Amino acid sequence: MKALVYQGPGRKALEDRPKPKITAPTDAIVRMTKTTICGTDLHILKGDVPTCEPGRILGHEGVGVIDEVGPAVTAFKAGDHVLISCVSSCGKCEYCRRQMYSHCTAGGWILGNKIDGTQAEFVRTPFADTSLYPVPKGADEEALVMLSDILPTGFECGVLNGRVQPGSTVAIVGAGPIGLAALLTAQFYSPGVIIMIDLDDNRLAVAKRFGATATINSADGKAVAAVMKLTHKTGVDTAIEAVGIPATFEMCQQIIAPGGTIANIGVHGKKADLHLEQLWDRNISITTRLVDTATIPMLFKTVAAKKIDPVQLITHHFALDDIVAAYDTFADAAKTKALKVIITA
Amino acid sequence: MKALVYQGPGRKALEDRPKPKITAPTDAIVRMTKTTICGTDLHILKGDVPTCEPGRILGHEGVGVIDEVGPAVTAFKAGDHVLISCVSSCGKCEYCRRQMYSHCTAGGWILGNKIDGTQAEFVRTPFADTSLYPVPKGADEEALVMLSDILPTGFECGVLNGRVQPGSTVAIVGAGPIGLAALLTAQFYSPGVIIMIDLDDNRLAVAKRFGATATINSADGKAVAAVMKLTHKTGVDTAIEAVGIPATFEMCQQIIAPGGTIANIGVHGKKADLHLEQLWDRNISITTRLVDTATIPMLFKTVAAKKIDPVQLITHHFALDDIVAAYDTFADAAKTKALKVIITA
Amino acid sequence: MKALVYQGPGRKALEDRPKPKITAPTDAIVRMTKTTICGTDLHILKGDVPTCEPGRILGHEGVGVIDEVGPAVTAFKAGDHVLISCVSSCGKCEYCRRQMYSHCTAGGWILGNKIDGTQAEFVRTPFADTSLYPVPKGADEEALVMLSDILPTGFECGVLNGRVQPGSTVAIVGAGPIGLAALLTAQFYSPGVIIMIDLDDNRLAVAKRFGATATINSADGKAVAAVMKLTHKTGVDTAIEAVGIPATFEMCQQIIAPGGTIANIGVHGKKADLHLEQLWDRNISITTRLVDTATIPMLFKTVAAKKIDPVQLITHHFALDDIVAAYDTFADAAKTKALKVIITA
Amino acid sequence: MKALVYQGPGRKALEDRPKPKITAPTDAIVRMTKTTICGTDLHILKGDVPTCEPGRILGHEGVGVIDEVGPAVTAFKAGDHVLISCVSSCGKCEYCRRQMYSHCTAGGWILGNKIDGTQAEFVRTPFADTSLYPVPKGADEEALVMLSDILPTGFECGVLNGRVQPGSTVAIVGAGPIGLAALLTAQFYSPGVIIMIDLDDNRLAVAKRFGATATINSADGKAVAAVMKLTHKTGVDTAIEAVGIPATFEMCQQIIAPGGTIANIGVHGKKADLHLEQLWDRNISITTRLVDTATIPMLFKTVAAKKIDPVQLITHHFALDDIVAAYDTFADAAKTKALKVIITA
Repeated sequence: MKALVYQGPGRKALEDRPKPKITAPTDAIVRMTKTTICGTDLHILKGDVPTCEPGRILGHEGVGVIDEVGPAVTAFKAGDHVLISCVSSCGKCEYCRRQMYSHCTAGGWILGNKIDGTQAEFVRTPFADTSLYPVPKGADEEALVMLSDILPTGFECGVLNGRVQPGSTVAIVGAGPIGLAALLTAQFYSPGVIIMIDLDDNRLAVAKRFGATATINSADGKAVAAVMKLTHKTGVDTAIEAVGIPATFEMCQQIIAPGGTIANIGVHGKKADLHLEQLWDRNISITTRLVDTATIPMLFKTVAAKKIDPVQLITHHFALDDIVAAYDTFADAAKTKALKVIITA
Repeated sequence: MKALVYQGPGRKALEDRPKPKITAPTDAIVRMTKTTICGTDLHILKGDVPTCEPGRILGHEGVGVIDEVGPAVTAFKAGDHVLISCVSSCGKCEYCRRQMYSHCTAGGWILGNKIDGTQAEFVRTPFADTSLYPVPKGADEEALVMLSDILPTGFECGVLNGRVQPGSTVAIVGAGPIGLAALLTAQFYSPGVIIMIDLDDNRLAVAKRFGATATINSADGKAVAAVMKLTHKTGVDTAIEAVGIPATFEMCQQIIAPGGTIANIGVHGKKADLHLEQLWDRNISITTRLVDTATIPMLFKTVAAKKIDPVQLITHHFALDDIVAAYDTFADAAKTKALKVIITA
Repeated sequence: MKALVYQGPGRKALEDRPKPKITAPTDAIVRMTKTTICGTDLHILKGDVPTCEPGRILGHEGVGVIDEVGPAVTAFKAGDHVLISCVSSCGKCEYCRRQMYSHCTAGGWILGNKIDGTQAEFVRTPFADTSLYPVPKGADEEALVMLSDILPTGFECGVLNGRVQPGSTVAIVGAGPIGLAALLTAQFYSPGVIIMIDLDDNRLAVAKRFGATATINSADGKAVAAVMKLTHKTGVDTAIEAVGIPATFEMCQQIIAPGGTIANIGVHGKKADLHLEQLWDRNISITTRLVDTATIPMLFKTVAAKKIDPVQLITHHFALDDIVAAYDTFADAAKTKALKVIITA
Repeated sequence: MKALVYQGPGRKALEDRPKPKITAPTDAIVRMTKTTICGTDLHILKGDVPTCEPGRILGHEGVGVIDEVGPAVTAFKAGDHVLISCVSSCGKCEYCRRQMYSHCTAGGWILGNKIDGTQAEFVRTPFADTSLYPVPKGADEEALVMLSDILPTGFECGVLNGRVQPGSTVAIVGAGPIGLAALLTAQFYSPGVIIMIDLDDNRLAVAKRFGATATINSADGKAVAAVMKLTHKTGVDTAIEAVGIPATFEMCQQIIAPGGTIANIGVHGKKADLHLEQLWDRNISITTRLVDTATIPMLFKTVAAKKIDPVQLITHHFALDDIVAAYDTFADAAKTKALKVIITA
């Protein structure tokens, strides 16, 4: 079968690989219909994810049809249309029992990382009963691909952790796909103000279209002052960090109101300064989270009810044969204006 | 001044009464600009509210301009434009400190009940600093009248107590003004399904317009079956009782899903059957609440952000001189299709 | 093997039955070492539990050693020392994913009810990975038998649902084993007052020994007045119903403070009156729950840390051969003063 | 009257000052009976608190008898026995309405900081109705002095923010008075493990006596390894920082379990490193808080119910005439083994 393989830092190719086989009784083999590329895949290609070794098929998102299930799988059978969670959950360990699937002692984020992933014609998904979700009849496959990772990530790590509430004020630092996913899902709670901050005017224009009430281009170094002005010098109730560098995390500290929450989504490679000398008496919370995808069932319902339109996040389409071009387009987002790209297998 | 006075069961009139005076240092005198009539006022007129004695000026909602403040009032001064909460809160007692203003040991719902109310040219409001809210410049006065009682009641007693969530299923039993207020504010949380149940097709049509995803006329006695069908035999996550009689409260018990919440808003005059023989093992919650109006500041923000349009609830307008006609219109809602009526003083 | 078999209303016997076999890959066969009798077993014997048919081996509590596991069981192996939850949880369904194991679509309370139970030499336990818990080395087996059902029931349905808090006031209506389990676990949260109400002076004396700060014998019909006096006319923050009849549930309604919670544990066979005409404006909550046993891991830790001594609940010991006598002793608690009886297999 | 006055960095003296007078209608004048010295007073004396100017009477804790009240005070009268909260709360502002009294726009921590404090024969307390608490008859005055600041600080900032739970594992870094206050109040929730970490063996011995299940002297630089060993390599559910320097805050980051909470109590003068490169995917929370004293009523109940014995924190007694010696004793805690000192006026 065709598969996009990581060949070591800076190198990837569409290779011919054997079709995966059931290796544990709880496995399923899924024939992929739609997949996508994640910012994390670009991190892997830079060599920044040591758990992912050369030779690995990338990808941890997608929709497909079950080809075969192991003997212990009871919730699905061949032919079932399924969404694949980016997090594999055994359903048994202490963390899974607490819905903290990201820390599953036997799973977690392993697809396209520690085991072969979804950017291929077929994928083996471990713990199928607790890691796949049935696709309702008539549902839009491409919309649902956004439920594998990006929407639950924005929602769980940003919106739920950030305790967005009706009428509250929210700032999202970073208007890339993940910041936009937080923007879309924040609106489930009807905040009064959503300020989007980024360096890219195109992305800010998209944010405005997606529901931001204000946008700030932080290139001039005056974003903090602009937020304070917009919030009558109080700061925001929720600051969502969706970049993953010290500067943006520090910006969140400067704009958070007393009693507020800084919800980190960004994947950080370095430590950041925490200004406890200013924050120790401000009654704030800071949260971190690797997505658990525990909210996929809830997100399914919001999509069915048209409370969110995930298709808005999709800017480009490619065939699996052209996935290398898809990577190029996705990686060069500043020029291509790509958000999420759909790969059809 | 002109004032609508309760003269004993079945009797009311627009009388000439002396302008109220400051009697405690925390009082304010407010010159009313807009007020309205509440279902509770009709209860009083039926003689159902023993705390309200003949001679009382009715009304506990409205917007006005401060005429005078007592010496201990620090947050407001003459000329300030204010919204009056239906609940007076001393801000000091154990209940007020817990935001349970409805049970304030010195206040609570006293306006137009134990002390003279707002259906007059002027009203004395106790505990002004903690019972009035500043009206922002340029705000729509009539919209804000809906924040005195009806919107916080639907929101606090129905939506917050009922724990409405993104994608969840909600049934509201009773599509009168209060059920409709619950319907409007439930949408802050983006539930997937909102089923409205009533006997009046006109009100159900309004509900549909206000965002209900399904409506059921329960006249045929088959409403429970209809809800179960709409929810794939599971029942609803949240059932909001907005009528106040045993039959509708029992309906809520029949349609609640395991793990769900029945949030009572209705003012009940009789006990109801609680079917513990069916519910003891269903992991449900039942809540009651007298509105605390603790969410008025939040509701102000949602109105400012256009997350809700309270004006939709207003069907009729009257001058204070015509308030008796306003009562007639409001009381005969089946014919007049009245929801909330605005009285301009 | 020997097994206690329900033979229809009023009839039970120790029979010789075949040793159970693995029937699903997720099953385990457990050789029982210690089991006990539950109030629910007495309900079954009265014919009150229609899901339990004659011929059923009773019992849903106990500790044992794994004899054999099905091929899909990964967390346990033969020889492992385990605690059996009274609730079987598939770990996969929507309810299990929400920790509402009581409503597991494939399990729930089935042991000793819909399938053969633990009052035998061996038992087949479905969904072993998610329904058994490892017994730590050196742990007291008899103490742990109390974690199968009675302690999580008192804790989850009474204490957690009842939101017991440091310094708060609690009343527990019913000082049988389940009320006493609530009493023991309520003390995890350091309430200031725990009032125990019952008709049996012996049980009230036990309650006093177990930590109740006050006891009331309700035989004189003056219990409500006594609670109101003890709480300075306010009522209690938490009222736990641990009997299961309308009279005790109504008592809870009369003693609940504004803002309080009535947590029902009792198994009710009849509807009760709910006095909404008094409670609609009192800001109270009423909860029901079938135990989920989701807190077994937490309870294990509290036992290990000596925050609770479950052995206090054990009053009698019997060999499996004498289980009929154990039933007689347990059923005649008023005379025998039995709380929980341990059966050694 | 006699009063301890801050005379600028490093200097303090017992001076003769005029008795304070009512300056606002919501004030009370309290004749002090018992007060104490806080670590914050030592910070002021070092010149570290710029809001506190020379000439200020220090002290923000204590118990006394009301001498006089302003005309708007309704909850207290001359002769009433009261506890003084270290935080003055207007009861009216947005923060007070949310029980975030520390951020009261008119009050907050002002006593002995921005206005004269309690280390004197008399003190003027603003917002008396919402900043004083009645002392019950027969209560131990010295025990209650611990409720002015130190116990609510340990409880709110450490225990409540840290979400301590039955059976959970807790580490408290810093066994000074505030860390010990967290230790005492953590036990309200029956955690299974409480590890106390400090450099002073005497304080660790006290911690053991106060209920710590393990103590670690971190002088050897191996505290992190010791905690990981005690927690079977998982880390702790709650890490409470009670020192206020970067090193101890970093230690908390190293010992926190996935899903855990770092609750900061320490007053920090410098920024600290936040290791987001390790924590971004660990699903943790970090909280900061200036004490709100919103739990004083709850703490009163726990003291009355003997769930906590605050007197344990008191090591020394002095007369107000000897307060300079009291400061010396308190400041030289390593040698004097002082925890809290009581000053009798």
